[in-house]
Amino acid sequence: MTNRPTIAVVGLGLLGTSLGMALRGKGYRRLAWTRRQELRRRAVAEGVADGTSDSLPALLAEADITVFALPLDATAEYLEKYASCWHPGAIVSDVGSLKARISALGQKLLVPKQVHFIGGHPMAGTEKSGYDAAFPTLYENADVFLTPGPDAPSEAKEELKQLWESLHCHPRFIAPEHHDQLVARTSHVLHILASALTRSILGTANDPQGMRERFAGCATGFKDTTRIASSNPAMWREIIQQNRSAVLSAMAEFEEEYASLKASIQMEDFGKFETLFTEGKLLRDRWLDYKKRGE
Amino acid sequence: MTNRPTIAVVGLGLLGTSLGMALRGKGYRRLAWTRRQELRRRAVAEGVADGTSDSLPALLAEADITVFALPLDATAEYLEKYASCWHPGAIVSDVGSLKARISALGQKLLVPKQVHFIGGHPMAGTEKSGYDAAFPTLYENADVFLTPGPDAPSEAKEELKQLWESLHCHPRFIAPEHHDQLVARTSHVLHILASALTRSILGTANDPQGMRERFAGCATGFKDTTRIASSNPAMWREIIQQNRSAVLSAMAEFEEEYASLKASIQMEDFGKFETLFTEGKLLRDRWLDYKKRGE
Repeated sequence: MTNRPTIAVVGLGLLGTSLGMALRGKGYRRLAWTRRQELRRRAVAEGVADGTSDSLPALLAEADITVFALPLDATAEYLEKYASCWHPGAIVSDVGSLKARISALGQKLLVPKQVHFIGGHPMAGTEKSGYDAAFPTLYENADVFLTPGPDAPSEAKEELKQLWESLHCHPRFIAPEHHDQLVARTSHVLHILASALTRSILGTANDPQGMRERFAGCATGFKDTTRIASSNPAMWREIIQQNRSAVLSAMAEFEEEYASLKASIQMEDFGKFETLFTEGKLLRDRWLDYKKRGE
Repeated sequence: MTNRPTIAVVGLGLLGTSLGMALRGKGYRRLAWTRRQELRRRAVAEGVADGTSDSLPALLAEADITVFALPLDATAEYLEKYASCWHPGAIVSDVGSLKARISALGQKLLVPKQVHFIGGHPMAGTEKSGYDAAFPTLYENADVFLTPGPDAPSEAKEELKQLWESLHCHPRFIAPEHHDQLVARTSHVLHILASALTRSILGTANDPQGMRERFAGCATGFKDTTRIASSNPAMWREIIQQNRSAVLSAMAEFEEEYASLKASIQMEDFGKFETLFTEGKLLRDRWLDYKKRGE
């Protein structure tokens, strides 16, 4: 046995596997679990985790910190099903893209058992998914939102914060509802736009020659602007569905900016166009500086 | 003296400088010119070109192939001003983002002098600009559109094609008007969207705390989707202005796809949403395959 805190990572997709990889050598005992026995054994063999178990309840009973890295609905199901597994004082968290529903559920289920649910959302990911898409630097320099409930003791908040800081992330506490509105704007709406752009740019050529020309006309600008259109459709369906009203508000804000740029083109006010474009560039430069300072 | 064809690159921004770098060792004698004497000397000293001249007319007189790498209006001005400089049989081309106007002008000015104007547009670039942003692999695996006029002899077309092929590019001939409609869709509209997204995502927080949260909420998805919003505003003003009607048509096509995705969210038809998103992903996968085959 060991005195190091034991971390259980549940789910070995892109996020869970990368978390296991990143936590290597950070002073934790790492347990990992996923439904497929073959994959959890592979994770141990490949150093993604220090151990696993064929029994998820047994594994969770050992965990001081558990991080769910599953789809949103799956995390909710697992919380319901395994709520009695943790020891008092354990911390349970997740990496899901939405926080309001899971935070409420986690607190409802776990606070009575003196287990601390603190939702988490590292702003990290790629358009790929699955175990084989994982890499140890995925979380490097990422901002991480944490959504403790009113009952979360400060030691538990601090412990989860330290976990992310050990991966060179920048954790910050935020109210779960506010988080969900924020990411509708900073992330969810981007996926809708990337998909719409991909469809409009490549989608309606009616002949092979036209299609080849479109392919040839798309370069690195297209590649980057639409990268996240290659994300997992089922995952994004779940996220957009559960954050529908905030997403529609964020879309309305996008539409306003789009309409301003379009009006400047329609009215041939290209001085205005250049001003708007310049303002966007300056805003993005400020964001790049912000990320750079974090490095 | 030498028997190698002499190429003159006029303009030492990102595209011209990268072209000089890429042409190194490809069997051409490379001359480069830019307005600032200090910069053209630096280009020779740093191996971006084999030679330069303080006299642009003298330099152009030596060139078998001239490639303008200047803003659109500047290329037109230079063509007007230096139309008498080339020797008969010389080829004049460019790397500008629009082809209809410059191709018509080039042919009008140069065909009477037995000089062959064949417009060019390599689908390569970054959001950066200027000499110091250049790198030798910018054009690697890029598609290149070439817009010969009806009078262009096949040897001239072949020679320009070979130039780009020597850089591992994929040149293809296209009618200039058709080119301009195509890139409105595959490139120009992306810049407008990236700018509108940047403005809507970062633009209207009314307090420092809100701004920091927005910054934190933006990750690699934001970074890539909006990368080209950091492009040169004056350059994009010029492009959008000169391709206004095709850009507005491409925007209308984008709006249709956007409206479909939005309707699926509004009407809570998330099966439809997932289908549309999946179709976009598959289209993008086909494009990725196309680019991969080119490598």
